[in-house]
Amino acid sequence: MSDQRTAALEYARQNKEQTLKLLETFLSIPSISTEPENQPDMQRAASWVAAQLSGLGMQNVEIFPTARHPVVYAEWQGAKGAPTVLIYGHYDVQPADPLDLWQTGPFEPTVRGESLYARGASDMKGQVVAALKAVEAIVKSGGLPVNLKWLIEGEEEIGSPSLEAFIAEHKELIASDFALNPDSGMIGPDDPTITYALRGLAYFELRVYGPASDLHSGIYGGVVHNPANALAELIAGMHDAEGRVTLPGFYDKVCPLSKEERAELARLPTDEKHFLEQTGAPALYGEAGYTPAERTGARPTLDVNGMLSGFTGVGSKTVIPAWAMAKISMRLVPDQDPTDVAKQFNAYLEAKAPKDIRWEVTEMHGGTPSISDRNNAGVRAMAAALESVWGKQPYFRREGGSIPVVAQMQRMLGIESVVAGFGLPDDNVHAPNEMLHLPTWYKGIEAFIHFFINLGS
Amino acid sequence: MSDQRTAALEYARQNKEQTLKLLETFLSIPSISTEPENQPDMQRAASWVAAQLSGLGMQNVEIFPTARHPVVYAEWQGAKGAPTVLIYGHYDVQPADPLDLWQTGPFEPTVRGESLYARGASDMKGQVVAALKAVEAIVKSGGLPVNLKWLIEGEEEIGSPSLEAFIAEHKELIASDFALNPDSGMIGPDDPTITYALRGLAYFELRVYGPASDLHSGIYGGVVHNPANALAELIAGMHDAEGRVTLPGFYDKVCPLSKEERAELARLPTDEKHFLEQTGAPALYGEAGYTPAERTGARPTLDVNGMLSGFTGVGSKTVIPAWAMAKISMRLVPDQDPTDVAKQFNAYLEAKAPKDIRWEVTEMHGGTPSISDRNNAGVRAMAAALESVWGKQPYFRREGGSIPVVAQMQRMLGIESVVAGFGLPDDNVHAPNEMLHLPTWYKGIEAFIHFFINLGS
Repeated sequence: MSDQRTAALEYARQNKEQTLKLLETFLSIPSISTEPENQPDMQRAASWVAAQLSGLGMQNVEIFPTARHPVVYAEWQGAKGAPTVLIYGHYDVQPADPLDLWQTGPFEPTVRGESLYARGASDMKGQVVAALKAVEAIVKSGGLPVNLKWLIEGEEEIGSPSLEAFIAEHKELIASDFALNPDSGMIGPDDPTITYALRGLAYFELRVYGPASDLHSGIYGGVVHNPANALAELIAGMHDAEGRVTLPGFYDKVCPLSKEERAELARLPTDEKHFLEQTGAPALYGEAGYTPAERTGARPTLDVNGMLSGFTGVGSKTVIPAWAMAKISMRLVPDQDPTDVAKQFNAYLEAKAPKDIRWEVTEMHGGTPSISDRNNAGVRAMAAALESVWGKQPYFRREGGSIPVVAQMQRMLGIESVVAGFGLPDDNVHAPNEMLHLPTWYKGIEAFIHFFINLGS
Repeated sequence: MSDQRTAALEYARQNKEQTLKLLETFLSIPSISTEPENQPDMQRAASWVAAQLSGLGMQNVEIFPTARHPVVYAEWQGAKGAPTVLIYGHYDVQPADPLDLWQTGPFEPTVRGESLYARGASDMKGQVVAALKAVEAIVKSGGLPVNLKWLIEGEEEIGSPSLEAFIAEHKELIASDFALNPDSGMIGPDDPTITYALRGLAYFELRVYGPASDLHSGIYGGVVHNPANALAELIAGMHDAEGRVTLPGFYDKVCPLSKEERAELARLPTDEKHFLEQTGAPALYGEAGYTPAERTGARPTLDVNGMLSGFTGVGSKTVIPAWAMAKISMRLVPDQDPTDVAKQFNAYLEAKAPKDIRWEVTEMHGGTPSISDRNNAGVRAMAAALESVWGKQPYFRREGGSIPVVAQMQRMLGIESVVAGFGLPDDNVHAPNEMLHLPTWYKGIEAFIHFFINLGS
């Protein structure tokens, strides 16, 4: 092992306590991008990231304002002839509700057992700090062997509405050889993972309107189509008995899985038992004819994310509600396109919604699915890095979540992303009691050190 | 016209201002029976009613505690040989939410145009005050020609859970010749109405549980049955394409409408146009093969009263919710029974709910439907009273709402109820901006005066 590699790993091991403290500071900022009242926290989080990057000796550190939340940029270009890696991350987090289910405050980071609990610990402030600390270890033990650019945005959890315009306006500034995107995790603590395909997203709010105001269900029950019932009927019709989505044309552009890829996915340890344990559901569900790993990674889905109508307090109220609302989103796979899916969603409603209600769709956000080359220099450097730390070859998997920026960078900058982070499936991301498994995270920092040094070798 | 009749009517006309003031005082008490925080207001409302009855010279005025909210009782037995009328009423009101849709505070009674706006103005504090003021007018102009008993409860809007036990324990105390129940209204301001049949009610809360906690819809979309989708599917299956309820056995005990009764109901002015105007719905809906008046009065229905799941705030959250909830109630007609319907609801869920979710039903409250004799002394006295005031014969109709006490008194005390009050269909009962049409209400007080004097003649 090279001297620098040894020194950098040693530095990281000696600094675990400061590393954890730094992450806790970052997690204390409630940078919820969707809530207007957290606007000042978003500014604080962006400034915090910029200060860290300056502290590492990065240059041209800049906070670029956008229509919503700023993008933090920085670079270091001192490794002549070496490749340039664009490190992507986001400093925003999901909302924390329902608050009453958190054991400790979502923005009061707390260690219990081997994990650190806080909103954003896994998704993805922990991953951003891992990259910062890996770079620090290398800088402190002889200097960077690769060129770096950083793009840390604040809108990932609301669908990155400003990112496409930012990339388009700053193509030259952020031009790189490939990207590192740690906004994805591992299959398990002993299963290093590289994600080669990501699902896209199309997110809608559907409102159904019936009577002009809430009605007495005794006086009017029997003459109006209850908007809550009508909404339930529309949602129910979105799946057939085999668990397939019924939006017209929904599967037209879905790439079928090759025999070879199905065989590869079958090797993943994410079997039925794994998903039963991870979810706690009484039984699994999904599209007929596909395995769980295929259904979560390589097949599109449709889920209700929220639903509200009428009286939902304690007790009973005999009312026919005037309206009903559902937030509904689809996970997409290559080559589906969120713009097409929006048309399919509207076409379904035009065909199926009865004339005795009115409906209205708001497009919330979308993201294109992606699939990448599994044999470029970046992926090879990461595969070797993961093997150095975990002592086994990584799994290659299709991930169910959406990282639209991967497809954007492919399309707009012509670069591939190495998608590898150190969250785990039971981290409760987007849910109460989000956590980060600290032993896996410390290993992740070492893996990033190997990755950057591998690239410079 | 008898001297007393003329004097009592004159007294009522002279005292309109005080009558309105009295009602406003009553309406200022937020006696919402379903909300635990309004417990002290329930006590205040009961004491207020008791004080009014004492003020009228009623005897044995007593506030009987129950498991939830007290029953106010009073009597006057000075008219030897004359019939005894049991006046039923309730001093509780529905919750006022959504508060932001009220033009003025629900408990700040406000006159706008010809109407008084407040929660409970029509349902049914206005009706209780009408009875109090009619009795006052008769007392002040020579004394009562009939015997009276008053039973004013505080749990009607939560299904009267204590009333059956109260009646059972006080059968002798409240024994009467028939009841007057003004907890129902008129078809229109120029259409005096007697209600001869009432629908019953069966109200449930259905909860569907899926994964152990909220999940990331990207990582897990495709392997678990989303509880919100599953709930929507269960609700959608509760009606067939003809608008019929699919619970097994739901129609088994429904009495078919006779040709004669259908012809009578066809004379009611409540046609399609009426219901379109009253509801503001884009088009009507309901069970195939029946008119709107039949569907709201003589046929059972099923409605979602409230629905909640997942993220319902501003923006988007890509979550698979851990649970979903719906409040679902059925309006019943003779001879359906709420206990049977609870079994049918559970049987439907046992048959239809998939194994990949868990479900739980809470029975909220129920009420038996009723149908009464249309030619007893009480009904004749009321029909004559309404004709005296409005100058036309009243309509006889089946009412869609539930007044379970009518069936209870029929079954437990062997007495029929005269169901006639002075609310109107567009009073927004159980909804924001509940109101009372004051000209109709003042006429109603005169009709009550005629009614009591008719009974003593």
